Amino acid sequence: MKKVAVILSGCGVFDGSEIHESVLVLLALDRAGARVICAAPDIPQHHVTNHLTRQPAAGESRNVLVESARIARGNIVPLNQLQLEEVDAIILPGGFGAANNLCDFALTEAACKVDPSLSQLLQAAHRAGKPLGFICIAPVIAAQLLGVDQVEITIGNDAGTAARLQKTGAKHVACTTHNVVIDRRLKIVTTPAYMLASRIIEAEAGINKLVQAVLELA
Amino acid sequence: MKKVAVILSGCGVFDGSEIHESVLVLLALDRAGARVICAAPDIPQHHVTNHLTRQPAAGESRNVLVESARIARGNIVPLNQLQLEEVDAIILPGGFGAANNLCDFALTEAACKVDPSLSQLLQAAHRAGKPLGFICIAPVIAAQLLGVDQVEITIGNDAGTAARLQKTGAKHVACTTHNVVIDRRLKIVTTPAYMLASRIIEAEAGINKLVQAVLELA
Repeated sequence: MKKVAVILSGCGVFDGSEIHESVLVLLALDRAGARVICAAPDIPQHHVTNHLTRQPAAGESRNVLVESARIARGNIVPLNQLQLEEVDAIILPGGFGAANNLCDFALTEAACKVDPSLSQLLQAAHRAGKPLGFICIAPVIAAQLLGVDQVEITIGNDAGTAARLQKTGAKHVACTTHNVVIDRRLKIVTTPAYMLASRIIEAEAGINKLVQAVLELA
Repeated sequence: MKKVAVILSGCGVFDGSEIHESVLVLLALDRAGARVICAAPDIPQHHVTNHLTRQPAAGESRNVLVESARIARGNIVPLNQLQLEEVDAIILPGGFGAANNLCDFALTEAACKVDPSLSQLLQAAHRAGKPLGFICIAPVIAAQLLGVDQVEITIGNDAGTAARLQKTGAKHVACTTHNVVIDRRLKIVTTPAYMLASRIIEAEAGINKLVQAVLELA
């Protein structure tokens, strides 16, 4: 039975993990008979968004691990307690949390910085030959860590985001929401999901392929 | 194209809508080609639970509609603005929000009271011959509204909860998480989901059958 860590970044598309993408990953992994370990960093969210008005929730603060636990039904560990030996692969769903809490891509025009404990985990996993899957906007983290190795990734077809990713050395490949980009050399799998999807079944199609590809590479 | 309202009660199993169940409903409806309208009451949550520690989050308050909007990616309407003419069927996922925010089943040993705007909507839909689906603990609401008509429902196999439901006049039928109970006379469909499920694919099996049955009755 393959064991896969799913790294969450809060609970909600506008300030955390995209909920549909996260649940679709858990569903596809369970269908494939994989064991899931959810993890998230024990850090404050960069911001809280009122998802009804899509405006900042002034004065509110929430914790990434505590909110991620909602998606995981309480079955989650702090990212810095996740042992690399425990997992065969790692998958990161998207949502603004991936670009605000796990790194600062959405907050700066400069080179993005990845959360140190996440960066350390992903780089160690990569060096150990374990495949990594990145969904939606999360591939910006793959670009930051593996751009120097010319990793092939997709965030869909947004020209501005793609151009910024390519500054790291990463190669951006345009891709529909129903599909994935697989860098077999570096064992990195990416899919656009809600970067492009207008319906949940569109996001599901690409996420199912991503989970399948990650498990095949593991 | 059939139009189905999905009534949410927050965002998280311990104080709101069970997230997996809610997403699985949205997924099954989209697969079936139905149009979804998410709705939730614009009321305070009864409580906020820290989903990491499973303890009360002292001093925190959240709004049911605002938190439900996380699951709906912002595409949600206040329950009292939902027009009965707009929908062919209504589905309620479970989670403690269904038993704490949409009614007070979890808060009292006495007869449970359903949120007035929800009660009005469900009774009007039922009188208009529209099917209703209730998942996990949400069938307590069906019992409260239709117990007098001896509605047949399931919440799985929990003897204490079943006994309390039957005080309303409802008939409880034991059911596995992979299955549904369909009351064809009253057009009520129920499935246990995470009342019993230990894995997301178990919840999915029953929820897929529930969505299919609700759409067939609509």
